[in-house]
Amino acid sequence: MLFQHSKDRLVAISDGVFAVVLTIMVLDIKIPTGALSPAATHTLLQEIFTYLISFAVVAQYWQYHQELFGPGIQVPSSLYILNMDYLSLLCLLPFVTGWLKNSQTSRYAALAFAVVIALVDLCQLLMFKLIIRANLRPDQSLANHDHEEYRSAKVMVVISGLYLLVSLTYPHLLLLVIFAGLIFRAGTTWLLRRMTATA
Amino acid sequence: MLFQHSKDRLVAISDGVFAVVLTIMVLDIKIPTGALSPAATHTLLQEIFTYLISFAVVAQYWQYHQELFGPGIQVPSSLYILNMDYLSLLCLLPFVTGWLKNSQTSRYAALAFAVVIALVDLCQLLMFKLIIRANLRPDQSLANHDHEEYRSAKVMVVISGLYLLVSLTYPHLLLLVIFAGLIFRAGTTWLLRRMTATA
Amino acid sequence: MLFQHSKDRLVAISDGVFAVVLTIMVLDIKIPTGALSPAATHTLLQEIFTYLISFAVVAQYWQYHQELFGPGIQVPSSLYILNMDYLSLLCLLPFVTGWLKNSQTSRYAALAFAVVIALVDLCQLLMFKLIIRANLRPDQSLANHDHEEYRSAKVMVVISGLYLLVSLTYPHLLLLVIFAGLIFRAGTTWLLRRMTATA
Amino acid sequence: MLFQHSKDRLVAISDGVFAVVLTIMVLDIKIPTGALSPAATHTLLQEIFTYLISFAVVAQYWQYHQELFGPGIQVPSSLYILNMDYLSLLCLLPFVTGWLKNSQTSRYAALAFAVVIALVDLCQLLMFKLIIRANLRPDQSLANHDHEEYRSAKVMVVISGLYLLVSLTYPHLLLLVIFAGLIFRAGTTWLLRRMTATA
Repeated sequence: MLFQHSKDRLVAISDGVFAVVLTIMVLDIKIPTGALSPAATHTLLQEIFTYLISFAVVAQYWQYHQELFGPGIQVPSSLYILNMDYLSLLCLLPFVTGWLKNSQTSRYAALAFAVVIALVDLCQLLMFKLIIRANLRPDQSLANHDHEEYRSAKVMVVISGLYLLVSLTYPHLLLLVIFAGLIFRAGTTWLLRRMTATA
Repeated sequence: MLFQHSKDRLVAISDGVFAVVLTIMVLDIKIPTGALSPAATHTLLQEIFTYLISFAVVAQYWQYHQELFGPGIQVPSSLYILNMDYLSLLCLLPFVTGWLKNSQTSRYAALAFAVVIALVDLCQLLMFKLIIRANLRPDQSLANHDHEEYRSAKVMVVISGLYLLVSLTYPHLLLLVIFAGLIFRAGTTWLLRRMTATA
Repeated sequence: MLFQHSKDRLVAISDGVFAVVLTIMVLDIKIPTGALSPAATHTLLQEIFTYLISFAVVAQYWQYHQELFGPGIQVPSSLYILNMDYLSLLCLLPFVTGWLKNSQTSRYAALAFAVVIALVDLCQLLMFKLIIRANLRPDQSLANHDHEEYRSAKVMVVISGLYLLVSLTYPHLLLLVIFAGLIFRAGTTWLLRRMTATA
Repeated sequence: MLFQHSKDRLVAISDGVFAVVLTIMVLDIKIPTGALSPAATHTLLQEIFTYLISFAVVAQYWQYHQELFGPGIQVPSSLYILNMDYLSLLCLLPFVTGWLKNSQTSRYAALAFAVVIALVDLCQLLMFKLIIRANLRPDQSLANHDHEEYRSAKVMVVISGLYLLVSLTYPHLLLLVIFAGLIFRAGTTWLLRRMTATA
């Protein structure tokens, strides 16, 4: 058989798309013209804050993607399609971020943001499921770390449901809630690892 | 001989171009301003639909490209030029997609889209031909899977002829026809694989 | 020693820059609005022609870069800086192409284009020199193919001098001359290889 | 354990981000329209100068990054997060460069530029620290070259403090000072290597 799937290239195209998505989000920060009035400063800081949060959101997805297709993992052929679906949704993040930033109080923008996050999270969970099924031998059980990552992918789907609720009720708080979520998750992970390390 | 072609780099530049093409197409979705009137919602949904279809079109090309230059394939030196021709046409897809989206009823835009698709498909078929000729030993015949992929590349050229016809007669239906084509092809592949698996 | 240069990464960053440069040039093609008048058609065709030529110019540089840092080549540490200088000039190509396209009759735009081409060619020749010096053992002489590539790099510097002359005298013909040059070089290479193959 | 960090991908995403950052900075050079008046020429040269300096700044960061994660280096898992923080700050460089260019005399723009440089430098120093700690065996001491690189990372933090001072006092000189700094550092390195080589 000449034509075979190449895991290296699945990883390469994904990293390429991640890199462009991460970088083009900075183009959304408008360069201030003239003196920095208090209002202009407020807008600028809000734009930088939005950029940093959306960067963190995409960076977090990359962290999981990078482990999901890590060294030693066998990638089943269905993942080649599913990963593209995942990337097509991920590429929508700069768009919904830009929309959210331009109209922080709009329910539609917040809803669009939350829907895209929810779809990416679902896609990610499905990829976890298929990769685990393809790589775990029947007599094997998930290692602690793998279990933790899988659970994280599930928690992210639940949290994205929460984002949907927030976007429908307090749309202007969505970014703050996502920010709090990132801090909370980072803190919990750090604490759990510290506890495991000392245990 | 110091200077030799590097297949790794042919693959790297191709994945880089694919990644940028996939990602910049999202920049074409205009961020809605103000409240979402029914008309604005319609435009937005149409833009997202166009984005998803063109993403799927490029992703499909990547799937074939990835197998075409997969592990174990010897790349003849003529392919180094031909692959660049292929990429130069592929890069035109964001442009023709943007044009088609802005003037869904224009025959010119639909024709330009169909012509670019047809040229990319022809280039792809030629690459299949040259790669197979360079990698198949005289006493060897194509494996089932390879045969299937090669036939797909031929079918895509035929279908692009159909797109040309549609663009000349019902230009406003082109995207829907392409969408139907993608669904049809995905369904057929899935069915054939299922039948082969149970056979 | 912990910290060492990584040839893999020199190649990766170069391919990344090449991929973005190749792709963003298509963003310069303006999407036609409304019906295609003869004048609009002319502008559009001119833009596509300019895009294809500048793509071919950059693709040609990539062909040489790819062989220059091919498998088995030892990269001296000075090349890590020089390659970045080369890339910084290469990145100017979308800018000078855009300028040239917007003012096809302007001597300044043509001159800027020719100067950038000349600088990239000089940089390329210097890289060839340093790579050959670092990789050729004293008792070794260049293989035929290597000699041919090295000579090509020299010829490109000479041709860029010609472009400078054209830009100062017939600026509106520059793109056509570059197009003719590409065709001429491709034809000569093809002929030479054919003659060598039959000899 | 199925899911493991992949150093290859940390390097790939970083090179991808570096490549896009390097390339999109050229989009900031505005294409001159009409004849080149002395004022327009001045603006154009200033824009090209700004582009070349910011390219050199980012290229310098890449040089260190490339050695920092070079072949043979073990990457501790905390670096996967820290590297993303580093990249998120690095991506701000096109924005602050654009701002600085548009308002060369503005204290705010110069301050923003200097703050981003200082943060990237701090991040870089921290990465050096953690990588050295994770890779140096207790009985080992840093090789001369490693020591030199580590000291450079420290010097860059000190210099970024100087940039902060300049941005507060003579904001319009910031780019020139950075340019002088690049030349000075390049000259010193060259001199030191020459002296070491002849010693």
